[in-house]
Amino acid sequence: MNTLKVALLGAGNVGSEVARILIEDSEVLAARAGSKLELIGIAVRDTATKRGQHIAPELLTTEAEALVDQADLVIELIGGIEPAGSLVARALKRGSVVVTGNKALLAERGAELFQLARENGGHLGFEAAVAGAIPILRPINESLSGDRITKVMGIVNGTTNFILDAMDTTGADFADVLKQAQDLGYAEADPTADIEGFDAAAKAAILSMLSFHADFRLGDVYREGITSITADDVDAAKEAGFVIKLLAIAERLEDGVAMRVHPTLIPRVHPLGAVHGAFNAVFVEADNAGELMFYGQGAGGRPTASAVMGDLVSAVRRLTRGVGAAKDADEVVEVRSLDLKPLGIEHVMTSYCIGLTVTDRPGVLSRIAAIFAENGVSIEQMRQSRGNDEENQASVLRIITHRGSEQALAQTVASIRELDVVSRVNSVLRVEGN
Amino acid sequence: MNTLKVALLGAGNVGSEVARILIEDSEVLAARAGSKLELIGIAVRDTATKRGQHIAPELLTTEAEALVDQADLVIELIGGIEPAGSLVARALKRGSVVVTGNKALLAERGAELFQLARENGGHLGFEAAVAGAIPILRPINESLSGDRITKVMGIVNGTTNFILDAMDTTGADFADVLKQAQDLGYAEADPTADIEGFDAAAKAAILSMLSFHADFRLGDVYREGITSITADDVDAAKEAGFVIKLLAIAERLEDGVAMRVHPTLIPRVHPLGAVHGAFNAVFVEADNAGELMFYGQGAGGRPTASAVMGDLVSAVRRLTRGVGAAKDADEVVEVRSLDLKPLGIEHVMTSYCIGLTVTDRPGVLSRIAAIFAENGVSIEQMRQSRGNDEENQASVLRIITHRGSEQALAQTVASIRELDVVSRVNSVLRVEGN
Repeated sequence: MNTLKVALLGAGNVGSEVARILIEDSEVLAARAGSKLELIGIAVRDTATKRGQHIAPELLTTEAEALVDQADLVIELIGGIEPAGSLVARALKRGSVVVTGNKALLAERGAELFQLARENGGHLGFEAAVAGAIPILRPINESLSGDRITKVMGIVNGTTNFILDAMDTTGADFADVLKQAQDLGYAEADPTADIEGFDAAAKAAILSMLSFHADFRLGDVYREGITSITADDVDAAKEAGFVIKLLAIAERLEDGVAMRVHPTLIPRVHPLGAVHGAFNAVFVEADNAGELMFYGQGAGGRPTASAVMGDLVSAVRRLTRGVGAAKDADEVVEVRSLDLKPLGIEHVMTSYCIGLTVTDRPGVLSRIAAIFAENGVSIEQMRQSRGNDEENQASVLRIITHRGSEQALAQTVASIRELDVVSRVNSVLRVEGN
Repeated sequence: MNTLKVALLGAGNVGSEVARILIEDSEVLAARAGSKLELIGIAVRDTATKRGQHIAPELLTTEAEALVDQADLVIELIGGIEPAGSLVARALKRGSVVVTGNKALLAERGAELFQLARENGGHLGFEAAVAGAIPILRPINESLSGDRITKVMGIVNGTTNFILDAMDTTGADFADVLKQAQDLGYAEADPTADIEGFDAAAKAAILSMLSFHADFRLGDVYREGITSITADDVDAAKEAGFVIKLLAIAERLEDGVAMRVHPTLIPRVHPLGAVHGAFNAVFVEADNAGELMFYGQGAGGRPTASAVMGDLVSAVRRLTRGVGAAKDADEVVEVRSLDLKPLGIEHVMTSYCIGLTVTDRPGVLSRIAAIFAENGVSIEQMRQSRGNDEENQASVLRIITHRGSEQALAQTVASIRELDVVSRVNSVLRVEGN
């Protein structure tokens, strides 16, 4: 059996797990891949930093370029654009197999790197960059290659799912749960990228690119975070049989794809409703396959390392059999069968769950219902509960609409806001999967 | 763009959908595959039978062998061993790409057919034969190729899931729901293969083969059906936060794989608990990836046709790029890195939910608890509810145990059955995912 040389770039959270697997599982990997995989070095910034006990100090080097030049297979887990980008390009120019988990690099220089892989007979594997351990790239790109994806809905950010799930389970407030998530390491000290939906929006763009074979960017994605979700919202959703999730949604419309990230009510019995804690899931609707869902851990050292190793072993199998390593995942970026443009949220059909505080007197409901009718929005359910505020005779209304155009729904809310009998619009949340 | 000739064998439920997709979506398929796909004929037993309106009568032929000999790509959807097996072998000997959804044929002659594909540079795609539209073959075989699968739990039979889900939702009895499922076409007139777990057991063997790279057969799988599940069992499970599902479970143990199919209590919040109606799902546990789940439709014309087309387009992409079609799914059967043997259910650790009718008098609980203790089985929860049978002073006990060896649990139940204070053992169900 021949031996292939593996260079590992980066020894962080994921990198050190990849090193461990390469060393501990070398026999099984060789049997599966058809070649022995020899870890010849790990490029790090500082060789003095202590690493895991399975990493022999002599493997560490600061000479990343020299390491790349000696390797048949390069695993890039440094992250960020540079020096990662130059090292990946260098390896691909040599015709090497490169496996990366670097979302930022793909978003910024993906097209160029895939072309380098094609031109030089190399291969760029990137399953680990999309939804961590969840196999999503091959299912979308190969298993569904004879079908037409119409909609993708994903829980793609573990931090926000952990927070919303904890709010749902404990009834606690957003701020308390965020604090707890930070203490447990599920949320960063500066949680903005997660809780404001930026991370989910970037993933929505990548999933859309994979699903609809078109170039989309973060800026094409409509975005709302979860910071305004209250314990009351969660409670009200529960009462109506729903759970609130931060969803990344990409939808094929007549002449383009609408992408959006926002907190969303989904039925508790929906498969996405059973995604708890920091787990992720991607729900796909296709013309012929119908509904599919892929569930798993979207982040973390070991799960992401599993995806890296899957790319590596699959590529080595092809190399070993003399098939040439490239020629599968590369299609994702190459095949552009459709000329779909990004569309704003105003193009989608959705339904709303609206919470209002209103004056509790006769005729209020009919005035509110009239506004829905004027805008052509039909009401699926309405529930009134008297507030504690006896003196002001206020009551709280929860209205869930049928599906209508986003524009009609937004106009309805704007008109309701102006009614004198409405003292407050407490919340406006979209509903999916109903 | 070059054109490849496609022969379709069979025009049943799945075949007619495949024909429709090949005809209606020809442009999109050509763009994705890199070659035009021309449906040159459909082999059927009787050309006089009426087919869907998209199928031109001149496409139909009874000369299957002649059709196979003219084709670059052969789609086998006849089912059964013969003539399907001879036709598939004939095509593979010619070095053609063959895509099949034929579970029975794979189980009986898989090894021989994969070898024919390898020897002659052909390819045998079979994603459609495993869990219908759910992409499971590539995720297990490629995405997890650098990981170690430890356990697979699947809802792999739509009929039984439809029945159990309806019992859970409506509180109805097994017999009534079975009748309803038959009326709706979800269950066959003779439902034995489904409700006695034979279909699920065959799928358990195939999933185990894929997951653990070893040869397993239907006969290696322990099997219990769902015919003895009562509305009371479903109710009691619900009360305790569980739902009853027919699971196909394959588990890696020290020196082998234990495979079993039986009705199982799983927590309602478990991802498998959100699999409703006739949907299927496969839940996978791997050393590094952790928990993964793949969800979708396990049967039906259009979903299965989607899986067939995915195999076809993926293979054509490789052909078009001159890579040779084979060399990916074939590994599934070829790679035998481990020598794992099938193990009986007595080797597994599980937990039980036991329902008993007992005499309601002091000392009964302690006698029952003593038997658990003697067998080293610890009790997680016990619930006593008084029955209606005031005169006989009977009460009903539900006991859920912690995890113990199957042998110890079975021994516990046998001893309890002999107690004079136990008038009836109402049900014994295993619990997973707790």
